[in-house]
Amino acid sequence: MPGSGHGYLCPMPDCNTIRCMTTTFPPAPVLAIDAGQSGIRSQIDSGEVRSFAAIRTDLPLAPQLASVVEQSLRGSGLTGVTVSGGVSGVTHAQTVADELALLVEPFGVARVFVAHDSISAFLGALGSELGAVVAAGTGVVTLAVGEERLAQVDGWGYLVGDAGSGYWIGRAALDAVMRAFDGRGPETALTEVVLAHHPDLPSMYVSLQTNEGKVRHIASFARSVGDLAETDAVAAGILASAGFQLAASVAAGLARVGLPGGRSEVQVRAIGNVFSSPHVAAAFRSSLLERVPEARVAVGESHPLDGAAMLPHLEKDHALIASIGFVTL
Amino acid sequence: MPGSGHGYLCPMPDCNTIRCMTTTFPPAPVLAIDAGQSGIRSQIDSGEVRSFAAIRTDLPLAPQLASVVEQSLRGSGLTGVTVSGGVSGVTHAQTVADELALLVEPFGVARVFVAHDSISAFLGALGSELGAVVAAGTGVVTLAVGEERLAQVDGWGYLVGDAGSGYWIGRAALDAVMRAFDGRGPETALTEVVLAHHPDLPSMYVSLQTNEGKVRHIASFARSVGDLAETDAVAAGILASAGFQLAASVAAGLARVGLPGGRSEVQVRAIGNVFSSPHVAAAFRSSLLERVPEARVAVGESHPLDGAAMLPHLEKDHALIASIGFVTL
Repeated sequence: MPGSGHGYLCPMPDCNTIRCMTTTFPPAPVLAIDAGQSGIRSQIDSGEVRSFAAIRTDLPLAPQLASVVEQSLRGSGLTGVTVSGGVSGVTHAQTVADELALLVEPFGVARVFVAHDSISAFLGALGSELGAVVAAGTGVVTLAVGEERLAQVDGWGYLVGDAGSGYWIGRAALDAVMRAFDGRGPETALTEVVLAHHPDLPSMYVSLQTNEGKVRHIASFARSVGDLAETDAVAAGILASAGFQLAASVAAGLARVGLPGGRSEVQVRAIGNVFSSPHVAAAFRSSLLERVPEARVAVGESHPLDGAAMLPHLEKDHALIASIGFVTL
Repeated sequence: MPGSGHGYLCPMPDCNTIRCMTTTFPPAPVLAIDAGQSGIRSQIDSGEVRSFAAIRTDLPLAPQLASVVEQSLRGSGLTGVTVSGGVSGVTHAQTVADELALLVEPFGVARVFVAHDSISAFLGALGSELGAVVAAGTGVVTLAVGEERLAQVDGWGYLVGDAGSGYWIGRAALDAVMRAFDGRGPETALTEVVLAHHPDLPSMYVSLQTNEGKVRHIASFARSVGDLAETDAVAAGILASAGFQLAASVAAGLARVGLPGGRSEVQVRAIGNVFSSPHVAAAFRSSLLERVPEARVAVGESHPLDGAAMLPHLEKDHALIASIGFVTL
């Protein structure tokens, strides 16, 4: 690997940290990219944030990223740039990094780092600390990072996974409404909300099944569940169950990476719209503390652009290193 | 209505039963039709059963039924025929009967009866008795018929309904496999079964979501859940839950139609592939008897062609009458 210009971070056998690389490469501008399915953003060092259309995970990723790199660097006059991207849909980070490097060489790029966006989300929420980040929007994915291992939990989509996500909450709400309609379940104020969108409940399932945006549409009812949770027992029950599911995912992830081990505390960050419901947040916190008393739970934001910019700066023995694709040009 | 030739059964104010119609019309051959989404069958009186392609519920129903009538009667030389069909996808039975009557008049048809196939399934399982029929295959629907009312319970599709169906069981199995994979749930022998179809579990959800036959594919795992239930606690738990869900649907349906009322017993028939699992059948029976001790539960078959042939023979005050479309020519 040495000399080829390709490889994971610092492949030199006598180099113990990533810092050796700054002796090989002069300090360089970093173009951070957060490529998600609702939009792509880029930022050079701490400058202005630029926005682009969402990444299409059903199309080759590298050409889409190369276009963002070209537009971001055009006219900047920068050379020796480090491109560092957290990208949705990445299954083999090194392959995407290799492909991207070939495409962006003409634009003044010296190094390319690529990782799945769950990694940049983790870094943007917890930095280089060990622990777990659970990101719950329409879907949900949990990433736990220990001393030597990382573990993804759930993120298995609306049909067989995403327990506790916005979709999961919205689907449970519609199910509860049909149960009340049938007499299989208790009456709920959710019925009125759903009737405003589906005035004929018996035909709702037909329009759901034929709706190409059904996942987003169903997830949109999660907000109403949150709005009604103070006064409606069915809504409150759904949110408590969601918090329980999310806590189970975090506890499983921590266990798989050997945390808390002997530590007196372990960091957990809960990010995404689902946690804006105090009912979900409270149920998540109490359920997790029952399983992992050492958890230090904070509900907060992720800064995935900052997380992407951190990819070149991780210690070489960090558990995330093996998941980052890296190319020098 | 009298004189127009259109209307529900026996609209004459001084006629108390359907039998009066046999004094108006000579005894006539009956062409029974069972038009389902996996195939259409027809039968003249108790003669040979003929098969046709499935009904397309996304296309107009009457022309498809007229074609079956034409092919079934062609060369028979019969006149004064009563066409009596249980048809999937019917929302307004009278409209379909009206449209069908116009199309089949040239083929020797004297009367047309049309009902939703859940009604012919009910009649084919319980005859003209009161009670409930729950039909559980890939989907599930329950129909309860009381003295004066009928009630459909569930049948709301794979996204927000069909609790206890083959799809519901198969989806729960795949969910359990991913939970075991993540460490969120117990190990299960279901994993080996699923791996045979999806060797890379983390990418299973992608292939499921893009599979146009996903509902049938997911439901196909229900059989394996049944096969493993003797030795695998996760599989057994899924089937027990399915039985509980199906019992809840029947109990809700009976309550809505006022059964058992003062009766010492009420008939319940459980039909469809899902009940071929003894675990589902046992859980269903015990869970239902806890809720409705008067239930006389039998697992058995429906004979929807026989049920369709019964449509012209119901007493005029039967609770199903209002759901049957009827036209005389």
